[in-house]
Amino acid sequence: MTTTNISTDTGTAALLAAVDAGVRTYDLGRRLSIGMPQSPNHPPFWHALPRRHGDAVRSDGGSAANDIITMGTHVGTHIDAFSHVSQDGRLFDGSDATEAGRGGRYPELGAHTIAPMVRRGVLLDIPAALDLPEGCAPGYEITPADLAAAVDRQGTPLRPGDVALIRSGWGRLFDHEDRTRYIGLTTGVPGVSEAGATWLADKGIHAVGADTIAFECLRPGAGHSVLPAHRVLLVERGIYIIETMALEELAADGVHEFLFVLSPLAIFGATGSPVRPLAVIANG
Amino acid sequence: MTTTNISTDTGTAALLAAVDAGVRTYDLGRRLSIGMPQSPNHPPFWHALPRRHGDAVRSDGGSAANDIITMGTHVGTHIDAFSHVSQDGRLFDGSDATEAGRGGRYPELGAHTIAPMVRRGVLLDIPAALDLPEGCAPGYEITPADLAAAVDRQGTPLRPGDVALIRSGWGRLFDHEDRTRYIGLTTGVPGVSEAGATWLADKGIHAVGADTIAFECLRPGAGHSVLPAHRVLLVERGIYIIETMALEELAADGVHEFLFVLSPLAIFGATGSPVRPLAVIANG
Amino acid sequence: MTTTNISTDTGTAALLAAVDAGVRTYDLGRRLSIGMPQSPNHPPFWHALPRRHGDAVRSDGGSAANDIITMGTHVGTHIDAFSHVSQDGRLFDGSDATEAGRGGRYPELGAHTIAPMVRRGVLLDIPAALDLPEGCAPGYEITPADLAAAVDRQGTPLRPGDVALIRSGWGRLFDHEDRTRYIGLTTGVPGVSEAGATWLADKGIHAVGADTIAFECLRPGAGHSVLPAHRVLLVERGIYIIETMALEELAADGVHEFLFVLSPLAIFGATGSPVRPLAVIANG
Amino acid sequence: MTTTNISTDTGTAALLAAVDAGVRTYDLGRRLSIGMPQSPNHPPFWHALPRRHGDAVRSDGGSAANDIITMGTHVGTHIDAFSHVSQDGRLFDGSDATEAGRGGRYPELGAHTIAPMVRRGVLLDIPAALDLPEGCAPGYEITPADLAAAVDRQGTPLRPGDVALIRSGWGRLFDHEDRTRYIGLTTGVPGVSEAGATWLADKGIHAVGADTIAFECLRPGAGHSVLPAHRVLLVERGIYIIETMALEELAADGVHEFLFVLSPLAIFGATGSPVRPLAVIANG
Repeated sequence: MTTTNISTDTGTAALLAAVDAGVRTYDLGRRLSIGMPQSPNHPPFWHALPRRHGDAVRSDGGSAANDIITMGTHVGTHIDAFSHVSQDGRLFDGSDATEAGRGGRYPELGAHTIAPMVRRGVLLDIPAALDLPEGCAPGYEITPADLAAAVDRQGTPLRPGDVALIRSGWGRLFDHEDRTRYIGLTTGVPGVSEAGATWLADKGIHAVGADTIAFECLRPGAGHSVLPAHRVLLVERGIYIIETMALEELAADGVHEFLFVLSPLAIFGATGSPVRPLAVIANG
Repeated sequence: MTTTNISTDTGTAALLAAVDAGVRTYDLGRRLSIGMPQSPNHPPFWHALPRRHGDAVRSDGGSAANDIITMGTHVGTHIDAFSHVSQDGRLFDGSDATEAGRGGRYPELGAHTIAPMVRRGVLLDIPAALDLPEGCAPGYEITPADLAAAVDRQGTPLRPGDVALIRSGWGRLFDHEDRTRYIGLTTGVPGVSEAGATWLADKGIHAVGADTIAFECLRPGAGHSVLPAHRVLLVERGIYIIETMALEELAADGVHEFLFVLSPLAIFGATGSPVRPLAVIANG
Repeated sequence: MTTTNISTDTGTAALLAAVDAGVRTYDLGRRLSIGMPQSPNHPPFWHALPRRHGDAVRSDGGSAANDIITMGTHVGTHIDAFSHVSQDGRLFDGSDATEAGRGGRYPELGAHTIAPMVRRGVLLDIPAALDLPEGCAPGYEITPADLAAAVDRQGTPLRPGDVALIRSGWGRLFDHEDRTRYIGLTTGVPGVSEAGATWLADKGIHAVGADTIAFECLRPGAGHSVLPAHRVLLVERGIYIIETMALEELAADGVHEFLFVLSPLAIFGATGSPVRPLAVIANG
Repeated sequence: MTTTNISTDTGTAALLAAVDAGVRTYDLGRRLSIGMPQSPNHPPFWHALPRRHGDAVRSDGGSAANDIITMGTHVGTHIDAFSHVSQDGRLFDGSDATEAGRGGRYPELGAHTIAPMVRRGVLLDIPAALDLPEGCAPGYEITPADLAAAVDRQGTPLRPGDVALIRSGWGRLFDHEDRTRYIGLTTGVPGVSEAGATWLADKGIHAVGADTIAFECLRPGAGHSVLPAHRVLLVERGIYIIETMALEELAADGVHEFLFVLSPLAIFGATGSPVRPLAVIANG
């Protein structure tokens, strides 16, 4: 039998040594709480405690409390599986989208097929690149030039296999007391559209993320009537999309490059999964 | 403004270099699917597609499918928050357990307070240490001597801050067609009990995991009447418990030491969270 | 063994004869659909089809489709159990309200304890009595004088054991495209308050209903900060409250007296139940 | 404006007079509680209290508790809509069953299209007719001859528009501590099959009910592989099916004829609805 121990300073040992030297982990997920902003197209997040402490005590003086949750998979911070979007009746693998879901799940491209990610991550801080301390304007389309400007300013070129996180600054509205602000139906929401998505895809990246619900540039009042970036990324190029991310802390600390870790729930046949992505950097 | 780039071979660069050199990621989570074995004490996992492809097509030829899920947080692979268990009316922080949950959530010790883990992980392969190719017997109590034997055989001492995963071999029953087998109500389930939990806690570890639903040694027919390991770990010592893990692949490959990554959903005030933990090793 | 047959024209035979002579049944319930207006205090109604026809066909050419629903019990047309509201820590039966719910349900006063109703019902059409073709104004308090005026105009005195349905006219907003209109948070909602509730209770009625979500007179912007009619009816007098009723059709037809039938789901320990109440009259 | 008052002793007045003379209402619904027996094909019933009394108190000393429920619509006592079953790709109205559900609901034949029932009801007490004090045997097929024998013994002929409730005696197992007994997968379950369903349909009845989950005669171990009575009733003849009814009390009292009242929740597009049906008789 083979055993893999930390006897040398290579391989797993080097990985553990790097961690042992001290890392800082940034939490890129939003808290799941009742009433948080989410798209009305998806079942709302709800939580309750069926049992609480004080309800019943076992013979040994112990008690256990538990939960029930009900939610869509595109609420809170989440990742879209390739089964989420079709174009002209086809999914990314060319399969018939209607047939693919027969049975009430997507066995081929469901959330359970998203491999966990342990990859280089890059934050593209668009407001910093464009000198917009308040963040991108509602409905602003982040262009390929904007993305390139962020790469250049930061000195963080995108490489094949990377995860690129696009900060628009919109995330500052997530905790606004008026939860419709973050959803932005009437105002529009900033984001990349077809051109930006194509530019990103051409870099060979593995996944993209954003600090908005829909990733896309949404025009005022237009809602989700068309989603060109989803088409380019999920259907044409096979690139995952992560939404409703918390990117403000990374930006505030000027962290533009990191180890990105994401481990979606393996929900069999689903079109997405709630996630809590991480950015890991060496500490000091 | 500070920027953190990969300009040198130290810090984050070393971390990324270790990953770039090639890693293998083991998925330690079970697939979430309708009908999978889970404790009857918790709301069952269920999933459906409110919208499927073929239901409606947008003006641009696109369509989106989505999901609804309902579940407890102690189903599938999951982590227990410190709010999950009380002893003699107290939680880990000494607070009154009944008061702590007033309002229908646990703001102080809920799942949202579990920091994501990027730590050294150690698999303690008990069947390998005890030469039990079929795994531990139903209802078998894994003793401190068993745990120590695994450590010695593997040459993987536990260190403060580690995550220790205890393999009993019971995980082979997760996919059994008779879903009551894995639950093991009548047969009992192998696991550590008070003595083993204390031994583990004395090593200063951060979290423990197991390949069973309840982590504990369950006697035949006894169900969850008493849960001494939960008391020791969650209430007395402040050590998280991860349950229903998939540990067979790690064991088959003889991987006993690894980078352990776990990122629970930040469900505000909940007593636990479904998770998909990872074990990362250098590849080759 | 006793058998109860329709051999004579008395008793059950008379009841069936009255029905055989022709009845008209008014549906006083609202349709349950995703996105309908409901209070944000309660889990939203959601529905999906886990299985659809076309998913799988049995050997005999048959298939079955099914549903999942998730919802609060105070959404759509519903009835409040006595467990719903407490005052100064006490429920209607004088029990300690906190103790009554220990275990996560209300065994003594839960929805399962609401006896099905087969009773005389009276519609009190307030807009008709006050000559307000558009219905009561937002935030208007329906007074005892208003209630008495409706009784007098209609010639339908309330009797002990009756069910009194209070029409404010607000129900016309239920299907408004702006779902916030019916909820009426900013505008207020018409309804009875403490005085009207006391007047109704003094008649000895068994239950009351209204065409609004909260039954109460809600002041603009005040929300559900205080609910005096609930206190009077549910806690002090033991009178059930039915909310979000559809009363427009009864009013349009001038039907003010009827056989009222309501059969709540016997949800063990719940604080209410969705219902579809009926008003039955002789046809012609 | 027309008003309908109780000024004469005909019409609605007669109906109310019959009720005023005293009625007894039998509850034909089962209590909805966590863990009750139900088919594993449908989402299980679950209930929790998001808010309890004691969580928060309003300024006036009041508090409100509330619920979340999640469930299938074919659990507990329920009625099947015509959208529930298809045969050879068609629903009762001849429509294409797959097309009918496009969009995730059945607008034409969903539960919202089931008119509330206020009709003559007849209990066919098969164990009484066959002199089987313990009830029909597991897997027993209730034949047309058995149904006719019950009609004859009771003197209660079926008439067009009636609701016929078939008691097999199996309902005594609903509260059995072994919840698999009532489901009866291994033992089989008594019920009518194609012949009995055809016999019932030929009487012109409006709906049928039974004291079992599936209405059908289920052979030991066969599960729901074929459902011929569903085909006859729901697809070919347009007769609703009510399942998991509580019929023991009616039988014990020898009540074979009654006013039957059923008011399904108007769940838009669903394949069924939980219900609490009533049998009303004159009292004494």
